[in-house]
Amino acid sequence: MTSCGVLVVAGTHGNEVNAPWLLRQWQANPDLIDAAGLPVQRVIGNPEAFLRRCRYVDRDLNRCFLPDLLDRETSGLEFQRAGELLRLHGCNGEQPCAVALDLHSTTAAMGNSLVVYGRRPADLALAALVQEALGLPIYLHEADAQQTGFLVECWPCGLVIEVGPVPQGVLNAKIVEQTRLGLETCLRALDQVRQGSARLPGALVVHRHLGSRDLPKGEDGEPLALVHPELQGRDWQSISSSQAMFRAADGTDHGELWVDGEIPVFVNEAAYAEKSIAFSFTRREVWPVEETWLPALQQLLCAAQPQAQTPLPS
Amino acid sequence: MTSCGVLVVAGTHGNEVNAPWLLRQWQANPDLIDAAGLPVQRVIGNPEAFLRRCRYVDRDLNRCFLPDLLDRETSGLEFQRAGELLRLHGCNGEQPCAVALDLHSTTAAMGNSLVVYGRRPADLALAALVQEALGLPIYLHEADAQQTGFLVECWPCGLVIEVGPVPQGVLNAKIVEQTRLGLETCLRALDQVRQGSARLPGALVVHRHLGSRDLPKGEDGEPLALVHPELQGRDWQSISSSQAMFRAADGTDHGELWVDGEIPVFVNEAAYAEKSIAFSFTRREVWPVEETWLPALQQLLCAAQPQAQTPLPS
Repeated sequence: MTSCGVLVVAGTHGNEVNAPWLLRQWQANPDLIDAAGLPVQRVIGNPEAFLRRCRYVDRDLNRCFLPDLLDRETSGLEFQRAGELLRLHGCNGEQPCAVALDLHSTTAAMGNSLVVYGRRPADLALAALVQEALGLPIYLHEADAQQTGFLVECWPCGLVIEVGPVPQGVLNAKIVEQTRLGLETCLRALDQVRQGSARLPGALVVHRHLGSRDLPKGEDGEPLALVHPELQGRDWQSISSSQAMFRAADGTDHGELWVDGEIPVFVNEAAYAEKSIAFSFTRREVWPVEETWLPALQQLLCAAQPQAQTPLPS
Repeated sequence: MTSCGVLVVAGTHGNEVNAPWLLRQWQANPDLIDAAGLPVQRVIGNPEAFLRRCRYVDRDLNRCFLPDLLDRETSGLEFQRAGELLRLHGCNGEQPCAVALDLHSTTAAMGNSLVVYGRRPADLALAALVQEALGLPIYLHEADAQQTGFLVECWPCGLVIEVGPVPQGVLNAKIVEQTRLGLETCLRALDQVRQGSARLPGALVVHRHLGSRDLPKGEDGEPLALVHPELQGRDWQSISSSQAMFRAADGTDHGELWVDGEIPVFVNEAAYAEKSIAFSFTRREVWPVEETWLPALQQLLCAAQPQAQTPLPS
């Protein structure tokens, strides 16, 4: 069993440019991020899209990790790349990794945050350790039939570090710094688990995905109104139930009022317009940490042996 | 002489989506923006790029309005489109316009602002009236051999309304509202000039372009450091001369200190990365309004006859 490496992916979306820059800087200066002795594999998720500075070429790579489809050798650049990443760095790959950390940025005001897909104990253990260290919010994405095939789901443990707001294609020093902090905190936590010194907090606070809303649209598909300015930039914040969701061009409120107790995330993420998502809404929940979580992560990391760090492809 | 129409252009850059949405809404609801009885022609500057949601296809349309090159029937989608716009709506075109208002957005925190190219009296008159009404800042772009061929320069009078920050491809209600306000104020000012009721203020405050800076780069062309977080979002603001311009990935300051008295604009505009511009710097100047300005604009508008508004191409 050597599948104990940590895969760090930047540029899964080619127009999210901050994490790729951070990884290049890390390659040039190995002291930039303390990998805590963990065997780390660094890759650009979608090199072709990164070269073109677009999100993807044929299909969103971060919706391509669908084992059934990958087994059938589905065509298209991103399906090919998904298969390749699994062959190279999957838990049974050439340079096996048990954990995947996928570094994203967003045009939404998500701050420094984590996205967890489903309720795998090892994911929740790592998320709890990072939340304990940094206090950051966690978006628990689950039960969304429209959104599947995320990269990290194909590794035994995996989280997305999601940082914003930053426009697509813009390098921003603060976004880089937040990404660096999130990544280093994940690596430190994994090392503590490996060393047996990790202690989970008593509770994990998640924002559980409930659903998504599109802009109201006319028969021609054109938006009739936009995200209300009072929602813009209010990711993770409580919204009054007297607040309209949308605003028309003439400045009048449009559409339903906000539902009390729901909390918005990914408000006006640029790339979600084509997915017909103006924002998602969540419910804040406090979960007691379960005893199974930490051992599940420990088991994945138990056999870790330091390996040389691989350079990024040039 | 019928060249007294006003050309309103949105989507000169195809990924600046707010002004095109505003114009469509205006088309659906003619009361949305008061054109003050002026004959207005509304167009999408670069329809093909707008369809693809990219800035341009072959070349930045807003650098293609170079009379010498256009006369030579230079090839490429954007050169063709520049020629077409002039044939259709130039001051000697089929539906002649004397004034062009070009609506842009930016990822930089420019707020609601105007860009004036050079020192044409009619432009300065219109800019002074809008500044008097709204108090907004004006970027005077001139003497920049690297940046030429702007759309509005091919009309006898023309301004850019530049609004930000907003990521490329993101519809934002506040940006739409600011654009609407800027456009309506321009139209109202033009009408006042036409009616002979316009009164210019005593002075015009401009931020005169001095130059631009790129990120510091290594031999491989990769940035060695990014725009300093203390400059990010500080467009139009005074910066301390003890402030470093850039920050490296390890959080240390990098590069020269800011030059006292210079004021940044277009800080970290996404589209300028390929133009090797991390930000431009300006000097704030207060110019006495000259007597020639208002008559120059009046002369352009004197023969204005109301014409039907043209619909946008669908």
